[in-house]
Amino acid sequence: MKSDLILLGHGSGGKLSHQLLDEIIIPTLSGISQKNQNDAAVLPFSGDRLAFTTDSYVVDPVFFPGGNIGDLAINGTVNDLVMSGARPLAISVGLILEEGLSIKELRFIVESMRDAALAANVSIVTGDTKVVTRGAADKIFINTSGIGVFEHSLKIEGNRAKPGDKVIINGTIGDHGIAVLASREGLELGVDILSDSAPLNGLVLDAIEKYGEHIHALRDPTRGGVATTLKEIALQSGIDIELEEATLPVRESVEGACSILGLDPLYVANEGKVLFVVDGGMADDILHLLRQHPFGREAAIIGQVVQAQKSEGRVSLHTAIGGRRIVDMLSGEQLPRIC
Amino acid sequence: MKSDLILLGHGSGGKLSHQLLDEIIIPTLSGISQKNQNDAAVLPFSGDRLAFTTDSYVVDPVFFPGGNIGDLAINGTVNDLVMSGARPLAISVGLILEEGLSIKELRFIVESMRDAALAANVSIVTGDTKVVTRGAADKIFINTSGIGVFEHSLKIEGNRAKPGDKVIINGTIGDHGIAVLASREGLELGVDILSDSAPLNGLVLDAIEKYGEHIHALRDPTRGGVATTLKEIALQSGIDIELEEATLPVRESVEGACSILGLDPLYVANEGKVLFVVDGGMADDILHLLRQHPFGREAAIIGQVVQAQKSEGRVSLHTAIGGRRIVDMLSGEQLPRIC
Repeated sequence: MKSDLILLGHGSGGKLSHQLLDEIIIPTLSGISQKNQNDAAVLPFSGDRLAFTTDSYVVDPVFFPGGNIGDLAINGTVNDLVMSGARPLAISVGLILEEGLSIKELRFIVESMRDAALAANVSIVTGDTKVVTRGAADKIFINTSGIGVFEHSLKIEGNRAKPGDKVIINGTIGDHGIAVLASREGLELGVDILSDSAPLNGLVLDAIEKYGEHIHALRDPTRGGVATTLKEIALQSGIDIELEEATLPVRESVEGACSILGLDPLYVANEGKVLFVVDGGMADDILHLLRQHPFGREAAIIGQVVQAQKSEGRVSLHTAIGGRRIVDMLSGEQLPRIC
Repeated sequence: MKSDLILLGHGSGGKLSHQLLDEIIIPTLSGISQKNQNDAAVLPFSGDRLAFTTDSYVVDPVFFPGGNIGDLAINGTVNDLVMSGARPLAISVGLILEEGLSIKELRFIVESMRDAALAANVSIVTGDTKVVTRGAADKIFINTSGIGVFEHSLKIEGNRAKPGDKVIINGTIGDHGIAVLASREGLELGVDILSDSAPLNGLVLDAIEKYGEHIHALRDPTRGGVATTLKEIALQSGIDIELEEATLPVRESVEGACSILGLDPLYVANEGKVLFVVDGGMADDILHLLRQHPFGREAAIIGQVVQAQKSEGRVSLHTAIGGRRIVDMLSGEQLPRIC
């Protein structure tokens, strides 16, 4: 590690995060290399398979346009289970509350969690609540862990992308990150940008049921955005990915906010988006199916998988003006406490 | 709720905690009443049963005599699974790190987690790491969630205590709470008091294998201590519990520290203790078995279950000098951030 201290960038989802994971956490705790990491672990259980995942939420502010830390925490863990191809079954909730948090806000957050769980058809089955002295936490942190069940025998993993595959996203990018940032900084953008936080189980499990054998990898581009997530898949699968800038769905308002703030929407977090890496020949059919779903209306094919040029798994972007640039992982922090 | 704000006591494990859970969190999130709550949820899965539990750790200080937040987090979740009668299988780790935490300390904590997982024979299979700005958290918070598998068809639950049962504890009480408090406050007690943090899977699963049908309830007396935990069982089962003060195993050093600090060891947290509520006729045999195990050498029968006098589930203590006092739940906070 270059630093002796934890930096904000160690939580960005980008290069520093990967370094912390690769050098300290993963070799010590799990022995499962980053290359084989997916959004959820898949465990054998009683002759069947079970998906297991965890996420802590520290978003600031706790309430933002389009959601709050409560529904974000449920949707996020539902989505991590779904990305492994599992149907979410049960969720645990661990609350860390700061002394002085208003009971009214807590009640609202907990009610949002209930509503999000109902919408995603999962049960909250166990929980834990801790309180820390004022100043020892910031209002509320939530951990949600989840268990999912597989209703098929497919293996959908980040290392299965193949040359000839297409990359599909189910809608616009950058909405969540910009909504949270604008709300935190009190930016007047002239338009309301809402977080895209949503449970993706319906959309994704429908697609798996119909086209499962053609879906090679699934991942939600949260921290680090589409760029970092595709870079992870490229590295895991040992292939290159070429993106077409003209096809990237980005709201005008988000595009505008990003240019004011000096951000690239490719690196901004999403909370209701999924990247599908699918058989090239089936991409149009899958796209058509996704567009029938409320969370897939603006789905688009945004790129393709090609043979690796070098060994490292490169992601590149063909720009709208005909150029080409390399898309690397986020290197420091772009937006801390975005989820 | 009497207060508009979250108070430290809402995290104590005692009355205020129960009120927060009963009035807001449980009715909203799970619909499972407090009366039916156990340390882990038990879910049907693929024709079998699965235990699922979660706990967040916010202990202050992070390092204390006898352990640190890392091994505490693993042992605590292992123990919660074991209390439902399950064998711990897999654990998730969610880290919330404060910007500026030393990498060296983080490494030490993560290594302690690895060692604790090895000792308890569980795998850490999935994780998440977040970083918050300096001052938004206190060094490190850890959530561990766990999955366990049942190797028997027994139901060991807090509502199964019956008149005639005996209450057994596997060793001395109050060690963890006093170790943490002394370390936090820099108290010079003249003796080293170590936390009892330990994985109880070996001790408990051996006892279940041999005497499972005679074990009615199992619970670890963590936050709120032995008093609060037995009060929960008394309420769940609708029985009374009578404790004998003379039989309570308390180290002299802990007894001394408690009297200096004005604390009652019955309410002080433990992290390597388990309360067994067992068939009266089998209590001596079970006690004998427990004493063979390194974590059960000082096991003792500390009380008995009797018919409820009123409907409320009363716990009382026959004092060493011949008196009798009612043991209620802890009402405010006794020791915040003890786990």
